[in-house]
Amino acid sequence: MHFTASTSSNGIVERDFRLGEIPGVLWSPVSATEHAPLVLMGHGGGQHKKTPAQVARAHDAVLRCGFHVAAIDAPGHGDRPRTADDEQARAELRQSAGDPERFRTATIRYASSLVERAVPEWRATIDALQQLPEIGPRAPIGYGGGITLGTAIGVPLTAADPRIRAAIFGGGFFVYDAQLEAARRITVPVQFLLPWDDEHVDRRSACELFDAFASTEKTLHANPGDHRTIRWVGVDNEFLPRHLTR
Amino acid sequence: MHFTASTSSNGIVERDFRLGEIPGVLWSPVSATEHAPLVLMGHGGGQHKKTPAQVARAHDAVLRCGFHVAAIDAPGHGDRPRTADDEQARAELRQSAGDPERFRTATIRYASSLVERAVPEWRATIDALQQLPEIGPRAPIGYGGGITLGTAIGVPLTAADPRIRAAIFGGGFFVYDAQLEAARRITVPVQFLLPWDDEHVDRRSACELFDAFASTEKTLHANPGDHRTIRWVGVDNEFLPRHLTR
Repeated sequence: MHFTASTSSNGIVERDFRLGEIPGVLWSPVSATEHAPLVLMGHGGGQHKKTPAQVARAHDAVLRCGFHVAAIDAPGHGDRPRTADDEQARAELRQSAGDPERFRTATIRYASSLVERAVPEWRATIDALQQLPEIGPRAPIGYGGGITLGTAIGVPLTAADPRIRAAIFGGGFFVYDAQLEAARRITVPVQFLLPWDDEHVDRRSACELFDAFASTEKTLHANPGDHRTIRWVGVDNEFLPRHLTR
Repeated sequence: MHFTASTSSNGIVERDFRLGEIPGVLWSPVSATEHAPLVLMGHGGGQHKKTPAQVARAHDAVLRCGFHVAAIDAPGHGDRPRTADDEQARAELRQSAGDPERFRTATIRYASSLVERAVPEWRATIDALQQLPEIGPRAPIGYGGGITLGTAIGVPLTAADPRIRAAIFGGGFFVYDAQLEAARRITVPVQFLLPWDDEHVDRRSACELFDAFASTEKTLHANPGDHRTIRWVGVDNEFLPRHLTR
């Protein structure tokens, strides 16, 4: 991992990094406490590591909680090239927009391909971040992914990596069997955000995913709105601080 | 309204009152601010105004938020006599325990009868509380009812009384048509608590109730557990403070 740029303002240090082909960003408090927790943030489908909403959430976690926050671009997203398969998958998504069943199938096929590549990338990123002296192997780690692709990647990642101690997931994507199987292996505390009126995804499938988590502590929060217009209110902002700072 | 007992400890004044036949309790901060908000708490079915869980929630609202909290016994509950109809309704509940459809019908019939009596009692209680100089007509009012009967009464009460500015409701009871009709008239912010694994009540009926609220701000929180064993974690404790203190 090497840093390619560093800026600092308003108490936050933002460092862009590269780990092999993966472009990432690490936000940190200017004065971080030793072994401050690390939160991994996964962006939504079609978005990237520095969308305004994700930057705002990262800044909040740095300033309010004193956490480090890392984000990487998912394969074929943000600053990353798309493979021929990615281009074909995206074309298929566009063409299937008017046909719900075909759209669902195309979305799941593309998501599965992204997840397969993204999980090992995130694990390598955690390895590299733990090499940094300001993080180290003892910093508690949480997954603070948003809804949609951030959860599609975060669920199998959290199931696979015991370093993740608590996770924020959400709905807004088509849940497929491998997601449910991964969820059944997750036992860490889960906060689950459900857009109540998602325009594409039946809320029952999100409820099925929530049901599948083996965690004894899990809370579902639903707000009206679809996954583009939803405004999260009344959500417990102490979830990650409660589980990562002891 | 007249007070029948008053005790004070740990910063909380607890005053029992009677309003006609209605026994109630008012918890207040020892040093309340002028026009401090008033929260109405409705207990669950078969319970009463001073169950340990309700007392704990009331104490939290007094000490953490500086609110007044009022609770009354529902008709036929706590310190109140039961009518012959109440006794018959309760006998029917016991006898129908093994037959889900008969139990549902009996529960709805009894709940409807309680709600019909309780809503005007609560409104008279609000009238009386607003006569107290430490509350007055300008104190913001919220409904902080728990799940089950507290919501069955709270939904039509909130729909009927424009003095209630924000409400906490929940699942765990059989939602019937009059409840849905009342919910459609509610526009104030709603926090909705759903026991995810209720042993009697299908979660779809609670979701239907949540859907029915006309409120632009409404948040559903679900935790694993049935309505006796549920442990509420990760719920936004700032909901009432946010809407009642401006």
